[in-house]
Amino acid sequence: MASCRNCFCCQCCCREEEPRTPEELTILGEIRDDEDEILPRKDYESLDYDRCINEPYVEVLDGLDNKKARQYEAVRWVMVFVIGVAVGLVGLFVDFFVHLFTKIKFSLVGDSIERCTDKGCLSLSLLELLTFNLVFVFIASVLVLIEPVASGSGIPEIKSYLNGVKIPGIVRLRTFLCKAAGVLFSVAGGLFVGKEGPMIHSGAIVGAGLPQFQSITFKRIKFDFPYFRSDRDKRDFVSAGAAAGVAAAFGAPIGGTLFSLEEGSSFWNQALTWKVLFCSMSATFTLNFFRSGINFNKWGSFQLPGLLNFGEFKCSDGDKRCHLWTAVDLGFFVLMGVVGGLLGALFNCMNKCLAKYRMRHIHPKAKFIRVLESLLVAMVTTVVIFSASVLVGECRDLSSPTPSNSTLSGGDDINSTIRQFFCSNQTYNDMATLFFNPQEAAIHQLFHQDGTFSPATLSIFFLLYFLLACWTYGVSVPSGLFVPSLLCGAAFGRLVANILKVKLGLQIYSGTFALIGAAAFLGGVVRMTISLTVILIESTNEITYGLPIMITLMVAKWTGDFFNKGIYDIHIQLKGVPLLEWETEVEMDKLTASDIMEPNLTFVYPHTRVQSLVSILRTTVYHAFPVVTENRQNEQDFMKGNILISNNIRFKKTNIVSRAAEQRRRCQSMKSYPSSELRNICDEQNAAGAEPAEEGEDLLQQMLERRHAPYPNLCPDQSPSEEWTMEEQFRPLTFHGLILRSQLVSLLIRGVCYAENQSSATQPRLSFSEMTEDYPRYPDIHEVDLALLNPRMIVDVTPYMNTSPYTVSPNTRISQVFNLFRTMGLRHLPVVNAVGEIVGIITRHNLTHEFLVAKLRQHYITV
Amino acid sequence: MASCRNCFCCQCCCREEEPRTPEELTILGEIRDDEDEILPRKDYESLDYDRCINEPYVEVLDGLDNKKARQYEAVRWVMVFVIGVAVGLVGLFVDFFVHLFTKIKFSLVGDSIERCTDKGCLSLSLLELLTFNLVFVFIASVLVLIEPVASGSGIPEIKSYLNGVKIPGIVRLRTFLCKAAGVLFSVAGGLFVGKEGPMIHSGAIVGAGLPQFQSITFKRIKFDFPYFRSDRDKRDFVSAGAAAGVAAAFGAPIGGTLFSLEEGSSFWNQALTWKVLFCSMSATFTLNFFRSGINFNKWGSFQLPGLLNFGEFKCSDGDKRCHLWTAVDLGFFVLMGVVGGLLGALFNCMNKCLAKYRMRHIHPKAKFIRVLESLLVAMVTTVVIFSASVLVGECRDLSSPTPSNSTLSGGDDINSTIRQFFCSNQTYNDMATLFFNPQEAAIHQLFHQDGTFSPATLSIFFLLYFLLACWTYGVSVPSGLFVPSLLCGAAFGRLVANILKVKLGLQIYSGTFALIGAAAFLGGVVRMTISLTVILIESTNEITYGLPIMITLMVAKWTGDFFNKGIYDIHIQLKGVPLLEWETEVEMDKLTASDIMEPNLTFVYPHTRVQSLVSILRTTVYHAFPVVTENRQNEQDFMKGNILISNNIRFKKTNIVSRAAEQRRRCQSMKSYPSSELRNICDEQNAAGAEPAEEGEDLLQQMLERRHAPYPNLCPDQSPSEEWTMEEQFRPLTFHGLILRSQLVSLLIRGVCYAENQSSATQPRLSFSEMTEDYPRYPDIHEVDLALLNPRMIVDVTPYMNTSPYTVSPNTRISQVFNLFRTMGLRHLPVVNAVGEIVGIITRHNLTHEFLVAKLRQHYITV
Repeated sequence: MASCRNCFCCQCCCREEEPRTPEELTILGEIRDDEDEILPRKDYESLDYDRCINEPYVEVLDGLDNKKARQYEAVRWVMVFVIGVAVGLVGLFVDFFVHLFTKIKFSLVGDSIERCTDKGCLSLSLLELLTFNLVFVFIASVLVLIEPVASGSGIPEIKSYLNGVKIPGIVRLRTFLCKAAGVLFSVAGGLFVGKEGPMIHSGAIVGAGLPQFQSITFKRIKFDFPYFRSDRDKRDFVSAGAAAGVAAAFGAPIGGTLFSLEEGSSFWNQALTWKVLFCSMSATFTLNFFRSGINFNKWGSFQLPGLLNFGEFKCSDGDKRCHLWTAVDLGFFVLMGVVGGLLGALFNCMNKCLAKYRMRHIHPKAKFIRVLESLLVAMVTTVVIFSASVLVGECRDLSSPTPSNSTLSGGDDINSTIRQFFCSNQTYNDMATLFFNPQEAAIHQLFHQDGTFSPATLSIFFLLYFLLACWTYGVSVPSGLFVPSLLCGAAFGRLVANILKVKLGLQIYSGTFALIGAAAFLGGVVRMTISLTVILIESTNEITYGLPIMITLMVAKWTGDFFNKGIYDIHIQLKGVPLLEWETEVEMDKLTASDIMEPNLTFVYPHTRVQSLVSILRTTVYHAFPVVTENRQNEQDFMKGNILISNNIRFKKTNIVSRAAEQRRRCQSMKSYPSSELRNICDEQNAAGAEPAEEGEDLLQQMLERRHAPYPNLCPDQSPSEEWTMEEQFRPLTFHGLILRSQLVSLLIRGVCYAENQSSATQPRLSFSEMTEDYPRYPDIHEVDLALLNPRMIVDVTPYMNTSPYTVSPNTRISQVFNLFRTMGLRHLPVVNAVGEIVGIITRHNLTHEFLVAKLRQHYITV
Repeated sequence: MASCRNCFCCQCCCREEEPRTPEELTILGEIRDDEDEILPRKDYESLDYDRCINEPYVEVLDGLDNKKARQYEAVRWVMVFVIGVAVGLVGLFVDFFVHLFTKIKFSLVGDSIERCTDKGCLSLSLLELLTFNLVFVFIASVLVLIEPVASGSGIPEIKSYLNGVKIPGIVRLRTFLCKAAGVLFSVAGGLFVGKEGPMIHSGAIVGAGLPQFQSITFKRIKFDFPYFRSDRDKRDFVSAGAAAGVAAAFGAPIGGTLFSLEEGSSFWNQALTWKVLFCSMSATFTLNFFRSGINFNKWGSFQLPGLLNFGEFKCSDGDKRCHLWTAVDLGFFVLMGVVGGLLGALFNCMNKCLAKYRMRHIHPKAKFIRVLESLLVAMVTTVVIFSASVLVGECRDLSSPTPSNSTLSGGDDINSTIRQFFCSNQTYNDMATLFFNPQEAAIHQLFHQDGTFSPATLSIFFLLYFLLACWTYGVSVPSGLFVPSLLCGAAFGRLVANILKVKLGLQIYSGTFALIGAAAFLGGVVRMTISLTVILIESTNEITYGLPIMITLMVAKWTGDFFNKGIYDIHIQLKGVPLLEWETEVEMDKLTASDIMEPNLTFVYPHTRVQSLVSILRTTVYHAFPVVTENRQNEQDFMKGNILISNNIRFKKTNIVSRAAEQRRRCQSMKSYPSSELRNICDEQNAAGAEPAEEGEDLLQQMLERRHAPYPNLCPDQSPSEEWTMEEQFRPLTFHGLILRSQLVSLLIRGVCYAENQSSATQPRLSFSEMTEDYPRYPDIHEVDLALLNPRMIVDVTPYMNTSPYTVSPNTRISQVFNLFRTMGLRHLPVVNAVGEIVGIITRHNLTHEFLVAKLRQHYITV
């Protein structure tokens, strides 16, 4: 295991630049031949963020006026407020019970230790603590067994979701229940985990779930309020919910908003951002309201800061020489940022190896093995903190027994969380103070305790914490990383402060260094930038820390990025999620859309037989099909023989907007106005243009007629066949629109089709609500009862297809394609050439970093 | 004037829904028949935010690798840091001199008043004050005469620029000098103006200018560092600079970042935002560093908060019943928000009328009239503040002569800015305290002074200030609005607090109410949302004010929006800037791209004669031309006769990417790989496809040949002619790319063309740097010396056109078009139909609110 870890680490710490062979490249994503290399999986689907503009939708639009739109907007505001309040209440619930459980545990065990210090029954105390922790962790672990997606911090999943990837189950009610309840027990069980990540995930689920007014877990929850049942609205509400989760967890509403922008947003949507901020504020202040009420019985005030609060950093009034930080300190902060980045990279590397080990050796086995692992971690953690406190803790003087003005004044209760274990009066056990407290209290100690911690204690604490936290993250319990990283980093920062202050005699403020250490390590691990800066500023409630925090995070990120990715990105990669980065590398612009598109298309015609549709749907896994027409000669002849073909040809002809026709239309509408001058101009043009225009249409007609059919054997009746020659398979096809698999299935299920001897106008029409009523679980083609379908009937898909998806030309550069795709939240991007023929289609999988790198290498080899 | 104002106000306070006649609609923007209605002007141009991908650019790309890209990135970081520091220094400069001048002025005049109170020579003091103010304002006004764009706050201009509109002169060095110097004097001159807006503008200019390494004002400043000389980079740096301006002015780095996102950003660009935040931080802390050093001689510390700082809101330690705010107060805050919104709307309405009056009656006259108006305003202001202090000021008890713990503790110096004019010891003149101080000090007084202000004083102060500030904004001096609005609103808030506390006996914290009043009024005037919330939170340095500030701003905005727009938007509208809003109204989705596009096109061919190009460029004002080919029959015949036509036809044929060709290309490149299996598949396909594919190309050829020419008189030689029939004018044209006017002129100037008897390959090639070396002032076509050009030569524009602009289909809905246009920062958006023919073009002017509304009405009438 040890040697294996070494070799792993080499691989994952170095940036991955091993050459792949051309075979690997060309089939990238199809075969995972390299065990260590996890490629984006093809089975993840994109969300539909872009609207599908088809006739049912246009009908809805026509019914909309600005008044109704304002009503919807008002409902949205109410919803984000409700989400904010709900997330605040969830935070309150989690915090209350964690607090309660931890308090009970530590007071019982603490009493037992006090008693046993003299009596020598310390093993009994250890046993007591072990029992508590194992029971709690067992519950947490069992909850995760019920819903495996509830394990971990949830931030990778939310990040993927906001990036536009559908991950099954992550925003379901069951996941919420397991996550929120599970995190209580995993935190109370003494594991080195935080509750912040799970709270963000919970918030996201609340955001996704509440506006749906229905549940898949509990089928009985179903109200008739379908307005927000679309991927687009859901994703917006999820970003609000996630932001509220951050806001509740850290008391950082602005940070929360920026978090959801940073992780999720593709474009700056002013209206949405404003709602997200409101939602975050609601969450923060709901929490503050209830906490002020419950904890201090001050109902109606909002004094208590957020759950994770760093206390007040403040120089005492008397001390004129005291500075929170100076220009000189900035140099140290940069160095600490470098070290934090290195430590973070090491942490990520070790955790990645562990996660791979788990994926290979634990996940395939029976589920209870995972529970056992959780229990093992809990046991080791408990034994370590107990024995460290007993064996390593030093007794330090309480330099300021009463909270006075001359201390770092972190709050009234800074000395209330001090542990005196095995120490005489006026001294305290520094290791126990850090280990036998909730992690938040330990952070406060490191930030504000004037009484020093010994360098040995800090080093050992850091080491133990680092290793255990690394081991713990990934165990199947709900587990956040923020607080452990902060605590770990704070110990490192305090250590630096100790050295600078005591050994070098510098005039520094220890609390600031602890804070910067925390920021450096956290930044090195998670590699977040803007939002983390703001979250930390808000948690300290001190704007003057902006610069040092920012510089530290920046340096830590740059240092860490030199070795590997952030921990969340690593876990996203391990899951094989096809995440789209912020932007492509500059080098990628050497590729064009035609280099990366998928040229092998499965398509449908505007009018297609039921049997062809069923066969296409059953034999392919694509989620969208281009609607195309063939460029066939002798169309007139075809039209006479076959209603299907003639309908398709007729559609094609009527569907093409020309400039002349457009101008005529404008002139027509202009004529209804009284302006005589304008009318005259138009009439003139009309007179001049009307006849030749007709001729022009005839010309098109003639032109089309004159072409002979190059593929006489191909009719729209036929489904794509394996026997096609390349020429047949890649023949030119005019692109008219996109239709989704779910839409086709809906049409088939609802019997939308017409008989061969009827006009397509007789086809029943579906409304928008009928098209979308099955959201979010559309029926599968295999659920369609074929007996009810007449295979010879014809389906006219044109009213239901998206007639105006964004398209790109084949020589568009990758950065433009990527920008369009990511910004507009697309799912399918057709590549259309200069004469309107579809030449390929681009999906998320064609834009992942791995795919692009492979294509670029291919490009270099070819060039 | 009074009656006129009334009638104006009715018009501008009501939402503008007067029906326009159809004639007006159809010619919207061409004739401004309604004097009161200012429509977007057609002569504003868009910035080129989107990259133009042409051959010179691709060459640059090919030379780029990730290492070079990283170097550029590093240079960018350095640049934003330098910009931040520079903006900080500008802020320091402005603040220092404003401070100095104001101090000199008030101390001299104050002394004089003290002396004259007994001697009765008050008119002398008034004269002294008048002299100071008039001189200062005169200087400010003359500076604005030199560069008229330097007048006002500059935020409307920056907002327009970031929105993507080129406004001449706003980011020039001369503007910067006039603005930065002018604002010194206008603020020191006692006008009711702030320095925040001008500082933001100055910051933006610094951002735009520094990375250019050249100046148009001073031709000698020109370094060989052309990397950031493009609209795209400039706009990015401007947003960083503007953010730094906000950050310096308010000490609000996060607020600054959000300001530039809110005003300027179209998409969330992670890398840019991170740089902008860094730039803001640099500006804030540069300022803090120097101010701490200069003011307190504490070099190396960063203690002093930003320029506009609201002091510390804090309950005294002893008072357990004191709350900054409670749930009950929120109700009052909502009401104050409503009142603030109403007051703001009134302010905007009055200011709009004034601005219109100025545009009609002052601006057309001689320039010195403007100076006279400034002097008039200065005189009235001076007389008003003097007489109000003398006549209306009440003597109030100094309830707490020493700064003690029981006060609102706004800082040590809260009593140092108290004015005792005409009052006995232990009392102070409340009106003079507000008027005879810098505005920031007056705000501090209202926020933190425990000694009460009388309701009468506050009411009169509010009224006078409201009217005078309204009059002042728009006078031709550099003038911000933030601080006057804050002060005005703070007086209103303090008034409410007085009433609630004294009359109703409620237990409230006056400072909070003053703050909320300030927020409400400011919100009602400027209608900013997210960024203003964050700026105010950061200025108070108190996260717990988040909720009340946000709710107040929200309510104020909604209330105000019921009547009119924000003040900046009003001034943007008055300038006729075609600003693009955040999103279109829902109703607009009833329109499609073909409804709003401009179908009348001026186009060029891939190969065009010099004479045609010159004539097109000289007879049109368009900034971009679609490059098109005709769909002509008998192409083979044409090809034989005329090199021009044959080159165009050849281009068209080679330019169309087909799926089959693409697939063949892939197979070809695949064959170079060793994987035998893959190669076999490809070979097979190749064997099957090669021959028919050739045939397919022949078919195209044949098809093209078979068409006879419908416009035998039209050759690419010809420039568009007035004599064309509609049919000729709107004939189908295949779209291949876009070329900018500036690019065409560059080609002509540099003699890029080939002779008729040569191949187009002999045409000289321009590099990317040659194409862009004239940025930002490209030569005009009228500067081209025609004698040097051979009109029969042919220009091949294909290497220089943008071959892959984003396009939309004619039936794309407006919201999609708008989203694409705004998000990608486009300048021209071609509308292309299903067979690749261009049917129209959409520019910024087709997407302004006014244009869309007109089109929608037309749509309703037609339907």
